[in-house]
Amino acid sequence: MTTKAPLKHDSRTALLEAGMNIMLEKGYTNTGIQEILKALDIPKGSFYHYFDSKESYAVDVVRHYDQTATKDLHETLHNTNQTPLARLKSFCEAGQAKLSKQECRKGCLIGNLSQEMADQSEVLRLELSRIIGKWQAMFADCITEGQNSGEIKREYSATALAELFYSGWVGAVLLAKTVKSTEPLEVFIDLMFNSLLKA
Amino acid sequence: MTTKAPLKHDSRTALLEAGMNIMLEKGYTNTGIQEILKALDIPKGSFYHYFDSKESYAVDVVRHYDQTATKDLHETLHNTNQTPLARLKSFCEAGQAKLSKQECRKGCLIGNLSQEMADQSEVLRLELSRIIGKWQAMFADCITEGQNSGEIKREYSATALAELFYSGWVGAVLLAKTVKSTEPLEVFIDLMFNSLLKA
Repeated sequence: MTTKAPLKHDSRTALLEAGMNIMLEKGYTNTGIQEILKALDIPKGSFYHYFDSKESYAVDVVRHYDQTATKDLHETLHNTNQTPLARLKSFCEAGQAKLSKQECRKGCLIGNLSQEMADQSEVLRLELSRIIGKWQAMFADCITEGQNSGEIKREYSATALAELFYSGWVGAVLLAKTVKSTEPLEVFIDLMFNSLLKA
Repeated sequence: MTTKAPLKHDSRTALLEAGMNIMLEKGYTNTGIQEILKALDIPKGSFYHYFDSKESYAVDVVRHYDQTATKDLHETLHNTNQTPLARLKSFCEAGQAKLSKQECRKGCLIGNLSQEMADQSEVLRLELSRIIGKWQAMFADCITEGQNSGEIKREYSATALAELFYSGWVGAVLLAKTVKSTEPLEVFIDLMFNSLLKA
């Protein structure tokens, strides 16, 4: 048992990491559990030791993805070396650089699975909703800070601006993946930071 | 042969209609050709008479969807009883009413398949890109008209505003499907028509 415990932990993490990378590329439905198990050389029994089903595995994959994404987002949106508006722009520019490096493939797992699975799996939809709500609240806090300092428009609530900011970004990423160009992101960044948000 | 020709035409249309409705609900990967054939009582051979593969069938389904969508969009964006800004708003309000009626399910086939298939099928991606480009050009024409009449802001090109308008709308629809509420669409409509586009 003394050697089994850390091994088990590693297998579970390895399964979540592999699932995250494959689902990011291929979506939920196109991801085969067998393929993941084969790549990791993990027996099927181990998979069902950790996860009840592919669906509950996907919920844990989404949570695993969210851990890193929320940590990165927190750092970006609390970087006191930048103004709140500059922090929001840094988030977009980092996303643009990442998508460009990936040749406009993959995008964001939360956006991808939302589109694919919102009508297919209620447990996944609820988890994705929860994460989106949390991220929007983090954007809203940053926008409030910018409104208080007079840098961001005050005619709309920070909550409404954060919703438009996030949904606009998700849409721009989706179009960038479709046209295989970061141009939709460039247009979004230009109009968002030079017109819609700027006081 | 005299009776076969119209039947064949009807079978092809029936296959496209059924594929459109099922793919709108379940996406590409989750749509089974067998399920469609069974529902329509059409033999497998007939399917392969009309379509080379599931992928080329999906391209035709997308074109079939686009025919109606472009006709509706053309009517809305050329309705001279309304100003250009009001026409764009009518497009959004009709979309909001439709999504609300569908309990925030389905959404738009072009947006849905873009998210699911842009990284999976190059022929589908190219067709989706072509349609998105055409729709954005239609939005841009309407925006140009509004800029010429002084109703819409002139500080940005109609092309850039049309891109932000369409990508923002796609993102808002995606989030509405995820949170199962039309609230993201309401926020989009409010900010787009009272701030970003309005001169």
